[in-house]
This record gives sequence, structure tokens and C-alpha cells, in this order.
Amino acid sequence: MSIQDEFEFIRSIRPAHYFHEGLVVGIGDDAAVYTPNKGFQQIVCTDTMVEGVHFLRKTMEPFDIGFKCLAVNISDIAAMGGIPKYFLVSIAIPSRWHEKDLQSIYKGMADAAEKYKVDLIGGDTVSIADHLVITVTLIGEVERGKAQLRSSARPGDVVFVTGTLGDSAAGLHLLLNDEFNLPEDDYQYLVSRHRRPKPQVKAGRIISEVDRASLNDISDGIASELNEIADMSNVQIVVHKDLLPLSDSIQLLPLEKQFEWAITGGEDFELVGTTSKHSFEVLKKKCEQEGIRITKIGEVFEGSPSVYLQEKNIRKRLLSKGYNHFKKGDSFGSI
Amino acid sequence: MSIQDEFEFIRSIRPAHYFHEGLVVGIGDDAAVYTPNKGFQQIVCTDTMVEGVHFLRKTMEPFDIGFKCLAVNISDIAAMGGIPKYFLVSIAIPSRWHEKDLQSIYKGMADAAEKYKVDLIGGDTVSIADHLVITVTLIGEVERGKAQLRSSARPGDVVFVTGTLGDSAAGLHLLLNDEFNLPEDDYQYLVSRHRRPKPQVKAGRIISEVDRASLNDISDGIASELNEIADMSNVQIVVHKDLLPLSDSIQLLPLEKQFEWAITGGEDFELVGTTSKHSFEVLKKKCEQEGIRITKIGEVFEGSPSVYLQEKNIRKRLLSKGYNHFKKGDSFGSI
Repeated sequence: MSIQDEFEFIRSIRPAHYFHEGLVVGIGDDAAVYTPNKGFQQIVCTDTMVEGVHFLRKTMEPFDIGFKCLAVNISDIAAMGGIPKYFLVSIAIPSRWHEKDLQSIYKGMADAAEKYKVDLIGGDTVSIADHLVITVTLIGEVERGKAQLRSSARPGDVVFVTGTLGDSAAGLHLLLNDEFNLPEDDYQYLVSRHRRPKPQVKAGRIISEVDRASLNDISDGIASELNEIADMSNVQIVVHKDLLPLSDSIQLLPLEKQFEWAITGGEDFELVGTTSKHSFEVLKKKCEQEGIRITKIGEVFEGSPSVYLQEKNIRKRLLSKGYNHFKKGDSFGSI
Repeated sequence: MSIQDEFEFIRSIRPAHYFHEGLVVGIGDDAAVYTPNKGFQQIVCTDTMVEGVHFLRKTMEPFDIGFKCLAVNISDIAAMGGIPKYFLVSIAIPSRWHEKDLQSIYKGMADAAEKYKVDLIGGDTVSIADHLVITVTLIGEVERGKAQLRSSARPGDVVFVTGTLGDSAAGLHLLLNDEFNLPEDDYQYLVSRHRRPKPQVKAGRIISEVDRASLNDISDGIASELNEIADMSNVQIVVHKDLLPLSDSIQLLPLEKQFEWAITGGEDFELVGTTSKHSFEVLKKKCEQEGIRITKIGEVFEGSPSVYLQEKNIRKRLLSKGYNHFKKGDSFGSI
């Protein structure tokens, strides 16, 4: 893109309106300025997606790339029980990318921004030789003291998960391989779970009302996420294979694959966590009222940090490996 | 780097202590959490540096890259009159980069963080095929209503600049060309102005106390920065060539080059702005007490947005071009 094109481009991506009254200065000065709400703490996270590493042109349309890069950050705020509010986007653009595709990236981002009521307040646009790189930084807020951390699991807790598991990894598999002949609706469902994740902000907000919960979003598969909770809470976690919630669509695929994807697949961007039995009952009721699926999948025990998968009477250790390709999500994620 | 190396690496870059009491959750959960200070607004900016575009291994040591990437963001907060506080860093690392060099990048960053009392609170580490990309997002704060914007210049204002102009561009020129034989001290001074910019946080804080000032940091040269102020304030700005502050070292280089660098060179990361005559006198006094050089370089007039350079009786229009190579600094900068 020429510099002139780029000025036009920046003008074209400026939001036509802002959702949040607290915003004082948006795009266009040295930095953005906003007034935080009284009684709230600020939550910040950042995630980077690299062409050829986190996505391929083959698996993601430009619109999806924009949508997903914002969505995975929103998911991190959801995993703290917070409300996403403002974001900045830095994009390094190779000259071989066309302006039309860049516009599509921003349209995808704007679509996610509209759905989750977040304001684009700043960013940086630079050139790069080879591969597109997008970094989104998202700022949210949560009532003081209400952020739900990975370190809050306690023995006796119920382990829960929102939605269904493994769909995103199944969708990616379908995009990369032509081996299963699924009905069109099921194919589209699984692929869209990979391309357009739905961060569970509403569920996170309900969980933030609970006295104490540990919480993580599923960027790397439950094996990895639960190990993080076990490590940071110093507890043992047992998950029951037959309790794992699977979508109707994934159940059309081979059984051993279903569980592999559900446990180590990653990128479902559902929430996984633990809370007391009593709180879980309250949580479940509130979620059901909001039409949010939430499922008990295991229990927390005393013991050195570890995660087990139980099937009938056999317990198998689940290690923290899992998804290390197309990886997203953590505050300091893995290469 | 292997995944194991990378875990070690992340552990090694965790700050040993945090400067700011408001920090509730630092590195290690889905997102960082902090409590904003009462009566303060939050300031956020982000800047990306790309290997081969914003720096070359030839011109910047890994330590410098880390230092500068944080410093240029601190400079954006300074240009709002704010206090820098928390930062996140996202880094895309090609496998050909060695861990030792990555450590040096973080050491450079930690050095700037220590100097300016900012806390590393999160980030992302990903792989990339070809070129290193670093994105820093910085959060600062300023007393409510005290952020100094580019849109605040008024006819009758004095135009001022901190420090000296053109040194960074001169330093870069020296690094890329072997054509002048400067005394070692002068060479080192100019090169360090390019590699280790000193964001003018203290000056910005003094300027934030002024009733009204327009303010910008010099990432792209004063021609570009003053045009931004002229555009956003709808005023005409006249700068006097003989008032431009030049360092002793730059004055050892050819005359026509000195002014080219001073006006369009960029990356000085000094502050440039305007304020009333009265406020400038107050400002100047306070800066002198703190040992900060601040110089009147021109005046603001009514008129359609434009910037002129005056030399004796001749006024020449200064356009907003300038530095578009190794460019840094804006909230949505140019490619």
C-alpha cells in the first residue's frame, strides 16, 4: 500500500461511534485516554496471531482472522470474569497483502467489536517483509476484587466447563483434511467454531458473582488449562471422560478423535473452572436462565498438582501438553 | 527455542519486583489486573518494531531494540503529560534468533523499565518464520482532564521544543555511512540518541500542569509533528530556523544535513508543543529548575492548517512528510 492509501485506510477503519462513555480520546493522538469506572479494576491482555503459524490463508478468510484475533482477547477478559471495553490493534502488513483483504480483516474485527461492544481506541500500522502479524491488546474491567483467578481452586470443588469441547480442533481438522464426509450443516458448524469463536463473556460475568471460583479460558485444550489451575492452586483435579460435553456434530466423527480434540484440541474459547458444590448449583441455575450450557466434568482433590482423566475405574494422568500449533491465549503463551 | 527453553525463558524475564502498588495480578493468569488511582484517567498506546523495517541488526544491538521499543511507548505517554505505569510485550521470534539475544532484548527492556519505573505485567511469545516483531503496549495515567492534546494550539501561542533536534537521525546516518570522521565522544553521543532515546516524562509532567498546551512527541520530525498539531488545532505555525536547538555534536556535521535531520529526521523523542506566552514563561522556569532544556522555536497564527519555516525574511512551507523509514510513534502510524 502507498502512504496515501494508508491514510485513507486508517480513516476507513475509524469506528463511526464508540460504545463507552468513559472514552475521552480515541484514535488520533499520541495515546488514547479513558476514565475508569469507580469501584472497578482494570484488566489487560494481549495476543498475537502470525500468518503461517496461527493461521493459514487456506484455513482462515481475512474476515475470520480479524474476528478471531479480537475474540481470543475477549475470551481472556471473560476468563477473569470481566467486561471487555477497549482495544488497540497493531498490524504488520507485507506488501503482497491487498488493501481489500486488509479491509476484510478490519471488518471481521469490527464485527466482533460490535457483538461484544468494545471500542477500537488506537493501534499501529507498519510494514513487514513476509508474513502478516496482528497483535490485539484488550482492556476490560471488573468490580474490585471480583476477578476470578487460576489460583482459586480448592479441594471439594466441582470442575465445570461451558458449552461443548473439541469443536474448534475438529473444524480445523476438516479444513486441513478432506477425509470425512459430514452433512453440510455439521461441517459448517465445526468450521465456524474454529474460525469465529464465541468468547463466553456472559458466563464469565455470572461466574464473577460467585464467592470464589477458579477460571481459565480454553485456548490450549482442557488438559493444559486444568494443569494451570492445578499448578497455581496446588490441587489435584480429576475429570470424567463420560461427562465431557460433546456437540452433536463432533459425535459424527471417529470416537477416538472426538476425545483427543475435546481434551487437547484447544481453541474452543469456552470457560473451564472450579467452584464449591453449592456455588456450582447457583451458577448452573443462572446459566440455564441465560441459555448457557454449563456442565460438571470432575472434582478437585487434595494432592500434588496434577490432572487425571477417569474412565470407569481407570485414571490416566493428563499432562500439560496439547495444542502447540496455531496456539493462542495465554498471558505469555508458548512458542 | 524449544518449548522447555521457552518456559525457562518466560520465567527468567518475570520482573523480580513491581513498582506500582495498584497491581493486583501481573504475569501468569489470563490477563493482568490493576486498580486505577482515584482521580486519574488511563492512557494507552501501542507501538510495533519490525526487524528489517524499524531496525537492522547492523544499527541496533538486541539490548537497544528492547530498550527502544519500550522507550518509544513511554514517549507517547510523556506526550500526553502522563505517568507511564504498566506494559505488555508481544514478541514474534524467528527460530534463527538465539536465546542469548532474546535475553538481551528483555534486558534492554528491563533497563528502560527500571529507569522509568514501569512494570511488565503481561504479553505473548510466539514464533514467526522470518523477522522479529515486537509490540509494546503501555498504560499510563494522568490527573483527570490534564492530558495535553494535539488539538489545543491557539493563535498567539509560543511553539516550544525540549532538548535538541536531529541527533537521532544524525546517529542513524553515522551508523549506516562511514563518511564523517567525528571525535569518538560526539559519535557515541549521536549514536546513543538513536539507539537509546530518553522519553521526556518529567518535561511532560511539568507541561501537564499548564492550563492549556498542545503536545506531541517527536517520532517523525518536527515538520510532521507540527503539521499534526496545526491540522488538529486548525492553526498556522511558523518555526524560525535560527531558533532550532542543535547539539554541539551535530554541529560538527555539514550544515545542510543538520537542518534536514532537525526538521524531518525524526526519532528524537523530545516533546514539541505550544502554549500561551505566559504559560511558556512559567514552563521554562520550572524546566530550568529541573535541568530540562526547553526552547521557543516559533509562534502560532490564525490561518488554514499549515507549517512554515522562516529564515530571515523568507517563509518556506513545511509539509508533513519526513521520516517514513524506521518510522515509530503514532497511534496508527504510517507504513
